[in-house]
Amino acid sequence: MAVISPNVLVHFPVITTPKVRFTGSRSKVRCSNSMDYGKAKMMEFPYASAPIKKLMVELLSTVDDKLGSSLHATSTLPSHVQHFGNSTRTAQASLHLRSGLPSSQIDLVLGGWIHCKLPSGGALSITSLSAYLTSSTDAPHFLLELIQSSPTSLVLILDLTPRKDLILYPEYLKNYYEDTQLDRHRQRLQALPEVTPYYSPSLYIRAVLSPTAILVTLASESKSIEQLIEDDISPIAKDLLHFWIESCACLAREVDASERAYLAERDRVIKNKTIEVDLGSSLPRLFGQEIADRVLDALKEYYNK
Amino acid sequence: MAVISPNVLVHFPVITTPKVRFTGSRSKVRCSNSMDYGKAKMMEFPYASAPIKKLMVELLSTVDDKLGSSLHATSTLPSHVQHFGNSTRTAQASLHLRSGLPSSQIDLVLGGWIHCKLPSGGALSITSLSAYLTSSTDAPHFLLELIQSSPTSLVLILDLTPRKDLILYPEYLKNYYEDTQLDRHRQRLQALPEVTPYYSPSLYIRAVLSPTAILVTLASESKSIEQLIEDDISPIAKDLLHFWIESCACLAREVDASERAYLAERDRVIKNKTIEVDLGSSLPRLFGQEIADRVLDALKEYYNK
Repeated sequence: MAVISPNVLVHFPVITTPKVRFTGSRSKVRCSNSMDYGKAKMMEFPYASAPIKKLMVELLSTVDDKLGSSLHATSTLPSHVQHFGNSTRTAQASLHLRSGLPSSQIDLVLGGWIHCKLPSGGALSITSLSAYLTSSTDAPHFLLELIQSSPTSLVLILDLTPRKDLILYPEYLKNYYEDTQLDRHRQRLQALPEVTPYYSPSLYIRAVLSPTAILVTLASESKSIEQLIEDDISPIAKDLLHFWIESCACLAREVDASERAYLAERDRVIKNKTIEVDLGSSLPRLFGQEIADRVLDALKEYYNK
Repeated sequence: MAVISPNVLVHFPVITTPKVRFTGSRSKVRCSNSMDYGKAKMMEFPYASAPIKKLMVELLSTVDDKLGSSLHATSTLPSHVQHFGNSTRTAQASLHLRSGLPSSQIDLVLGGWIHCKLPSGGALSITSLSAYLTSSTDAPHFLLELIQSSPTSLVLILDLTPRKDLILYPEYLKNYYEDTQLDRHRQRLQALPEVTPYYSPSLYIRAVLSPTAILVTLASESKSIEQLIEDDISPIAKDLLHFWIESCACLAREVDASERAYLAERDRVIKNKTIEVDLGSSLPRLFGQEIADRVLDALKEYYNK
């Protein structure tokens, strides 16, 4: 079971798929002004351990290198949603969202972190990177989340999340998960004595992930969590992102009109359900109602455009 | 990880949904003649441990008591598929399939067991009970499978398998899995020190199960597997079957024509995929090609009616 209380656990920055495009020069100017600030604040990863920061910087550099030309250079989010904290300075968060260009298959890439002090005296630190594709392809989304609530344990969620019902579309399961042998990453990690399966308290989160998803808790007294991240998690996360970029984001697929409608509708449900499950319940507790509303409203505005 | 080699593991009697109805008196006579034989052979559970046999007899009695009036009294399968073995007498199997009456929501109830000697000198014993509903309801199917390949370990698969994509139908997830707090059974079992999560080698099996599915390995040297079955597995299996009968099999649901078509199509994919994944690869290895063909052909005949 989780080392983190279900009431504390947040899946906040992930599985959101706002479809936002810049339409006017005002937006461009505003976002351009706030871009460096938002990106710089995120890239600080001020509360992450050195290996987590190193991993995130490497992953984001890979995204820049390989997908930068398919993404808007500036952040889509208003500056007050790019970085925010609560009034007592016990909680901070940073979000950096880059929309894909209309000509690309990429909907958005969202990186971010949340840090908050826990009543117990410890702290909860969540670091995440997710990347979503448009309905012009049915290829899976990418998801990485690292949740740390103590120096000796870490929850890792790493997956290529399916866009289709794997039962109604068995060829999708075969194409993206069986033929690619994606399960080898999970098998490799779970062979380590420090690794145990993790069950998200949200049934929705369990249901949205693929059957090869890595949901594990790392807990060790003999080997440091930092060492495990460096030796075991980082190579797998980098491998999976590389695979996702090459085989999902950059590979064109034939998707007809009815499939596009299906993918769009499924993503719409995901977006609404994610707000309900994760944001609506977690943000007010961590940041207070006012800040939570501000962030939620900004995201909802994008969802409804 | 599994205690059983993926090459040996069979999910054979489960998740098959033949939609067979008696249409002629010849069938009735033939099946009536073979009914007692087939049921009696299954109910022997000659290779199951005492607590597994006790559990299965209790579950099947419950089905008889509560659902008997909704089921054909006779087995739907021809006698040579109700009980069969290989030429070297190292493998035996018994299947008992009762179709639901046209007036009921029950498609079929399938009980059975497979036993085969392993090259290592041990034996593999699979005991299963599954129950399927028609497309007149969207309620989940019932699935129980006990897989034992050594006296000190057991794999348990216990689930109410969803009929709909839980992402596209979040209210389905809420109705059948969240509001019912089905996850408490998994939590209770996984709190035991003898229990570890089990990953089916088949991604399809992982995908077809619900997010509250119990997939665990029981392994213990201090407490016997028999004791664990009696103390921990039996109460949960009986609870879940009772819940399924009361809240799924016997509760009418509003299902419109388009939903029925969706459910029928999804079940069709499940049937075909199950043949491909489980039967096609496993039966020839365990029983030889001739017997495997005979069983597969009989089931395929039902599928294609």
